[in-house]
Amino acid sequence: MSVLGPLFRWDSIEVLFTDRALVQGMLEFEAALARAESRTGVIPAPAAAAIAGRCSADLYDLAALGRAGASAGNIAIPLVAELTARVEEVDAEAAGFVHWGATSQDAIDTGLVLQLRPALEHIEAELVRLAGALASLAREHRDTTIAGRTWMQHAVPTTFGLKAAGWLDAVERHLSRIAEARSRVLALQLGGAAGTLAALGDKGPEVASALAEDLRLSLPDLPWHAHRDRVAEVATVLGLLAGTLGKMAKDVALHAQTEVAEVLEPSGEGRGGSSSMAHKRNPVSSAVVLAAATRIPALVATMLGAMAQEDERGLGGWQAEWETLPELVRLCGGALHRAAETMAGLRVDAARMAANLTATRGLVFAEAAEMALAARVGRREARRLVAGACRRARGEDRHLEEVLAGDPEVGRHLGGADLRQVFEPGRGLAVAGRLVDGVLAKHAQRAKVPSDER
Amino acid sequence: MSVLGPLFRWDSIEVLFTDRALVQGMLEFEAALARAESRTGVIPAPAAAAIAGRCSADLYDLAALGRAGASAGNIAIPLVAELTARVEEVDAEAAGFVHWGATSQDAIDTGLVLQLRPALEHIEAELVRLAGALASLAREHRDTTIAGRTWMQHAVPTTFGLKAAGWLDAVERHLSRIAEARSRVLALQLGGAAGTLAALGDKGPEVASALAEDLRLSLPDLPWHAHRDRVAEVATVLGLLAGTLGKMAKDVALHAQTEVAEVLEPSGEGRGGSSSMAHKRNPVSSAVVLAAATRIPALVATMLGAMAQEDERGLGGWQAEWETLPELVRLCGGALHRAAETMAGLRVDAARMAANLTATRGLVFAEAAEMALAARVGRREARRLVAGACRRARGEDRHLEEVLAGDPEVGRHLGGADLRQVFEPGRGLAVAGRLVDGVLAKHAQRAKVPSDER
Amino acid sequence: MSVLGPLFRWDSIEVLFTDRALVQGMLEFEAALARAESRTGVIPAPAAAAIAGRCSADLYDLAALGRAGASAGNIAIPLVAELTARVEEVDAEAAGFVHWGATSQDAIDTGLVLQLRPALEHIEAELVRLAGALASLAREHRDTTIAGRTWMQHAVPTTFGLKAAGWLDAVERHLSRIAEARSRVLALQLGGAAGTLAALGDKGPEVASALAEDLRLSLPDLPWHAHRDRVAEVATVLGLLAGTLGKMAKDVALHAQTEVAEVLEPSGEGRGGSSSMAHKRNPVSSAVVLAAATRIPALVATMLGAMAQEDERGLGGWQAEWETLPELVRLCGGALHRAAETMAGLRVDAARMAANLTATRGLVFAEAAEMALAARVGRREARRLVAGACRRARGEDRHLEEVLAGDPEVGRHLGGADLRQVFEPGRGLAVAGRLVDGVLAKHAQRAKVPSDER
Amino acid sequence: MSVLGPLFRWDSIEVLFTDRALVQGMLEFEAALARAESRTGVIPAPAAAAIAGRCSADLYDLAALGRAGASAGNIAIPLVAELTARVEEVDAEAAGFVHWGATSQDAIDTGLVLQLRPALEHIEAELVRLAGALASLAREHRDTTIAGRTWMQHAVPTTFGLKAAGWLDAVERHLSRIAEARSRVLALQLGGAAGTLAALGDKGPEVASALAEDLRLSLPDLPWHAHRDRVAEVATVLGLLAGTLGKMAKDVALHAQTEVAEVLEPSGEGRGGSSSMAHKRNPVSSAVVLAAATRIPALVATMLGAMAQEDERGLGGWQAEWETLPELVRLCGGALHRAAETMAGLRVDAARMAANLTATRGLVFAEAAEMALAARVGRREARRLVAGACRRARGEDRHLEEVLAGDPEVGRHLGGADLRQVFEPGRGLAVAGRLVDGVLAKHAQRAKVPSDER
Repeated sequence: MSVLGPLFRWDSIEVLFTDRALVQGMLEFEAALARAESRTGVIPAPAAAAIAGRCSADLYDLAALGRAGASAGNIAIPLVAELTARVEEVDAEAAGFVHWGATSQDAIDTGLVLQLRPALEHIEAELVRLAGALASLAREHRDTTIAGRTWMQHAVPTTFGLKAAGWLDAVERHLSRIAEARSRVLALQLGGAAGTLAALGDKGPEVASALAEDLRLSLPDLPWHAHRDRVAEVATVLGLLAGTLGKMAKDVALHAQTEVAEVLEPSGEGRGGSSSMAHKRNPVSSAVVLAAATRIPALVATMLGAMAQEDERGLGGWQAEWETLPELVRLCGGALHRAAETMAGLRVDAARMAANLTATRGLVFAEAAEMALAARVGRREARRLVAGACRRARGEDRHLEEVLAGDPEVGRHLGGADLRQVFEPGRGLAVAGRLVDGVLAKHAQRAKVPSDER
Repeated sequence: MSVLGPLFRWDSIEVLFTDRALVQGMLEFEAALARAESRTGVIPAPAAAAIAGRCSADLYDLAALGRAGASAGNIAIPLVAELTARVEEVDAEAAGFVHWGATSQDAIDTGLVLQLRPALEHIEAELVRLAGALASLAREHRDTTIAGRTWMQHAVPTTFGLKAAGWLDAVERHLSRIAEARSRVLALQLGGAAGTLAALGDKGPEVASALAEDLRLSLPDLPWHAHRDRVAEVATVLGLLAGTLGKMAKDVALHAQTEVAEVLEPSGEGRGGSSSMAHKRNPVSSAVVLAAATRIPALVATMLGAMAQEDERGLGGWQAEWETLPELVRLCGGALHRAAETMAGLRVDAARMAANLTATRGLVFAEAAEMALAARVGRREARRLVAGACRRARGEDRHLEEVLAGDPEVGRHLGGADLRQVFEPGRGLAVAGRLVDGVLAKHAQRAKVPSDER
Repeated sequence: MSVLGPLFRWDSIEVLFTDRALVQGMLEFEAALARAESRTGVIPAPAAAAIAGRCSADLYDLAALGRAGASAGNIAIPLVAELTARVEEVDAEAAGFVHWGATSQDAIDTGLVLQLRPALEHIEAELVRLAGALASLAREHRDTTIAGRTWMQHAVPTTFGLKAAGWLDAVERHLSRIAEARSRVLALQLGGAAGTLAALGDKGPEVASALAEDLRLSLPDLPWHAHRDRVAEVATVLGLLAGTLGKMAKDVALHAQTEVAEVLEPSGEGRGGSSSMAHKRNPVSSAVVLAAATRIPALVATMLGAMAQEDERGLGGWQAEWETLPELVRLCGGALHRAAETMAGLRVDAARMAANLTATRGLVFAEAAEMALAARVGRREARRLVAGACRRARGEDRHLEEVLAGDPEVGRHLGGADLRQVFEPGRGLAVAGRLVDGVLAKHAQRAKVPSDER
Repeated sequence: MSVLGPLFRWDSIEVLFTDRALVQGMLEFEAALARAESRTGVIPAPAAAAIAGRCSADLYDLAALGRAGASAGNIAIPLVAELTARVEEVDAEAAGFVHWGATSQDAIDTGLVLQLRPALEHIEAELVRLAGALASLAREHRDTTIAGRTWMQHAVPTTFGLKAAGWLDAVERHLSRIAEARSRVLALQLGGAAGTLAALGDKGPEVASALAEDLRLSLPDLPWHAHRDRVAEVATVLGLLAGTLGKMAKDVALHAQTEVAEVLEPSGEGRGGSSSMAHKRNPVSSAVVLAAATRIPALVATMLGAMAQEDERGLGGWQAEWETLPELVRLCGGALHRAAETMAGLRVDAARMAANLTATRGLVFAEAAEMALAARVGRREARRLVAGACRRARGEDRHLEEVLAGDPEVGRHLGGADLRQVFEPGRGLAVAGRLVDGVLAKHAQRAKVPSDER
């Protein structure tokens, strides 16, 4: 991992996208192909064993493969050559059956799928962890009032629990999307030189079926090498997830601003300091997540833009995917891990939330006042009265309740306990609590279903 | 539609995204809201009738709304004001109940969903039409041989039917994706000022439920105004579709090149001419589809990049969606319509396909020769022999079969009828035919299922 | 302009990108081509006059052109046909000389350049206006202290004048970039069918030269139709500008937050209200600018991604530009106009800036305290002392100055007036003032240079 | 470099963007800062020497820095801490002056500029090399006829020299753009905690000036940390370059297609082979360049989208740049190097170009026939006659010349030598030759100017 890696990425995902893992994915394809071909009588059993025995990335000089790949145009060509040479050392006949009937793209694409499978599993598990953290926040702060903010301005009161439930609700949708995409992407690619399986004679479908079974991948109706929607969908689904993570991080960063101070990212040794300022507590995780949310949409666009690949194998488009999709998965994994960590340790200052809510001296209750008045004098008149009161409250720096209480026109319709009620922060938020409950109930139900049945 | 509109867009979609349709979507929300509030006892029944009676876009001056929206920050604010004024003309009390308990974003987001619903229906129907055309091509050309091309170079023979089946297979996956996304996006948005439904008191959930039923939308667990994954998913799903359409168009354009001449776009009066060249038959539809496939990924990125919206309503991100998603749907609709039309009328020159296949004097059968030899002398030796023969065939401008036949080393292992067979274009393509059959069978099965059960 | 147009766009630019303007740009090319060909003896003078006489967009049915363009593949083909028909009505011979020696792309590309010229002029003029507004802010608030914020947290004091000078400094760089790009993009495109000018015989270069002179465009060394860097550069230069506008708008929106309240967008009738909340003053212009800054990067990517155009005329790439570049220019123009308006009328609350600076009870002066101590005890010790004091100040909710004053270790090195000085907001900001002066001086100097000499 | 690195990247650039180089850039800033502060009397001279003496990246544990950076939020914080510790080992007092008055971003941004400087120099040098190769092609093939192709269809004849001159002309524009951008980006960043230089007291400007001189960077009027247009411009300028490289690579790939076969990428050991097909010569370099051209636009969009950074230091946006800009420079460098290599060794088959030109049996001369006839019968009539002849030539598979010769209507106006001349490939291409000469002359002139005076 590069020196910037630990900031932006997550070990559990990183380990799946090292050079070694890339090569190992292809070698697993080659080993399983040999086994499948042996099982179906296409190649001799000893050859399969000999081949599989050399399918460990540790046996290969990755730097040399890289250099050879620069000429060959892809890494599978020199890898197959090296594998053949290694097999030849132990079994000359077997060497002739390496990569039998397959083409580079079969190894590269299936290898990628084998890398994506555990990556998606880690992402799902971490999403589940994030969902749990959000459910806790929603539960704990079900009735914690906070200023609802629209256009970055105080609007009306809401609850922090509803905010957390909103995050949670989105996370649950992402779990569904990933499950749907997984069913399409975890599919074998085996087609041979142009996708016809011709080099395997009549045995093509049988080999493909055995290979899919060996690798525990689904068997597609057709080789999909030239149709990239399966892999591009992984990009789009994670792109949507990154958008939600970015939304959560932006909310945290906004609430953590010096003047707002409603939440703090979890603290830790050396976390969020400054090289010049002793007092700083920078929301580092939010920055990391927002950086990922800034970068990932473009990587999604690259994957989509690369889909128009020529005929049976693309020139430029396919190659554009090779670093882009792993990068996207890694950035998304890093952001997700940071988000899960942040939400699990988020420090919430409910008192400050309450204080900010009242800091504008009642203005945040303008809509409540208007609705209360509207029921009596109609909405237009209510808006006129309340808007006027808001102006005066602002201009004279007085509390809106006081201004309304002093307005004889208002007084005719709304006053005393009724007026006082308008300015109770929790008033009108009972429904918000019920909405939170609903989301929590659905979350609890989903949490009971094992991931592979979703 | 602008002067460039007819080139890039499709009437059936265009009519759903006019200014009038935008406003009508919001008015349908307002009318249904009033009805739902009347049904649930929140507002008087006559008010609901009066409001619904003015909810026709034709009653409003769109240009004036546009100008007012420039100050207000969105179009719903002046529209609600105008609607109130219109209702007031007929029923002063009812005017007070316009937009009761709702906020601008409720009208805008739900209005958008109401525009997306028929758009997605049209797209699905056109995808079905495209699938039908592709199935016909796959069936008709199940055994039409054509050069498989990889890296824009002849590779090995394949069939045009397999190519069409590949396109079809991808189209079927897109139908699944759209159905999945539809289930998430066709959801009501009603939350009030900050998503708490507070202004509706205890009746919020009841109103929401009645409103969802009235509009035949699903009722989400939570208002989703601040979480944009539902609408952004429409962008990603259509982005994936555009990628596949681009792939198909690129294939058509490549096959239609002057030197290749294997397919022609359907012709028509004034189609694909040139202002300077009488002989031109430009593949206009492919250009239109490729232009859309070039533009759409960036629009997807915009939708994803806009997701990190602040708190209960975004500043910049939400507004960035307003023109972007409609534009994306329109471009995708236009491209899809062009693709369906092109594939339904595609002129396929099977004779030219066969001629191109043999134009390289046997080189396209190099892999077949290698596999045939490999079974006898091992792969390494087979590669050495065939690669040498390819070099000589090229250098001396001779047919590869002739060179191989003249090579004594080869002759020891492969000759006569066996060698001749290697160079039969259809050899080894039986499996391709079976793959085509499989895709066609699945297509036929899917075609029987009504779209709302998918 | 669409119903959302007035929100996002600017009349001065809009009028340059109507359908009519698009067609007029091409007709100006055709008229000037005829004149140039007449001047160089390629076509008869009366023909040129007859042609030029019909080159008014008002004579043409734009909707019909649009429909015909959908078949033809571009709008120039039917336009040339219609122009020919119109000329024929008055002069049958002249009709034969319409579009003589040119191709569609010549008309479309040069027409685009003719649209871009005034657009860039308007953008430069508005940038100059924006620069003026920023210079006023920088001058007026040269010494207005405000909390410098990094990572969305208070860092150390700065001045609002320095902030405005930073905006101004960036705007001045954009003026330079636009001038540089203008010199490359305001170039004639004339190449004929494939860029060889062959249809004009030996007269090609002479016609091109006369045409460039007629249109007041530069004459490039080569027709540039297949090389799109000239037009794509307009996209990148405006993309950079949009980034700066987005930065300014984000700063304004952050300063305008309810809890911060340091600036307000200029107010106006119906501006920034809410359909549900009487008290709202939404920063509408910031939202518009941020929406543009969210959308434009993707449009830049589209223009760049479209550059890889095939051979002598692209298939898909060129067509992808047609709506993208105008859209980008329009969005950028709209954002720029909003920014200029906002900055010219920005309401700055210097008192609130000062109040926010001190609201964290001295923490914002932590770096100043550390530097003051460091000069005496070394930096490591200073950091240790100040960091400890910050922790105590936070924990005990006391003023940092008080905590430091009460710390005997600190007292040995820093106390009394020296310590008090650390907490003077303006201390250390003399250099900031000089930096502002420098930027203002350079601005004043540039403002004296006429735009066409820059 | 990763296992895919050698395929996509170029050693000369790679070495500038290693982890070590990243850290070394920051250390060079720190060393030069210390020297500048010593020169201006801010810190003692021995301290500067002690600090500079530890500013070698080899002294630091990059992996540990990476881990610490994950908490701190950037790599400069732990690096400064480590540097301080190392200095302390040799000179305790000096340790107190490390990073004096600066902030992390000063080190990171200036460090980046120090990495970009040699990268831009390498890119310029390689562009010059590419220009030289293109000039040779243009010169050598000044009069080599080839089919001009528009919309991927034969249009009219052109020359391969003109094509090469078009590439060259674009490359020359990129040299200008890079020189312009360089003047803005090679600027010092020094601002301290919030850009006020406050921690340096009155000496800030003097230190900045001395530091800029030491590092041979320009001294900007203001610290630019919060305004990212300088670095984003590097992205846009290279984005434009990548577009041109993509256009060249697409042209090469199209010309190299099996059926076209007009050019071949330079060959080499192991180059462009296939794991399954002995006869393949894949245009690997074109694929690499096209992959870069597919990926870079999105990275440009990321840099532009990241520009809206908050206040005095961004949260998410700045961090999004850190890996994006280096990635972009590396991909662009890799593509450029491949393009230069390809063009320097491009194998051009002029005979095949001539053969392809005539393969459509005269259709490519349709415009020439039309222009010849138009001079006699008017354009409309000419178009009618030629279009009819084209239809017949196609339908009856005859040569257009023969069809025209047999058409009595045509014969009245055009026949014999005049008609024969129409079908001479080189006819009408004299002007193309002059255009090539013009571009070559300008290229020769530019090549004489040293790069730092451009």
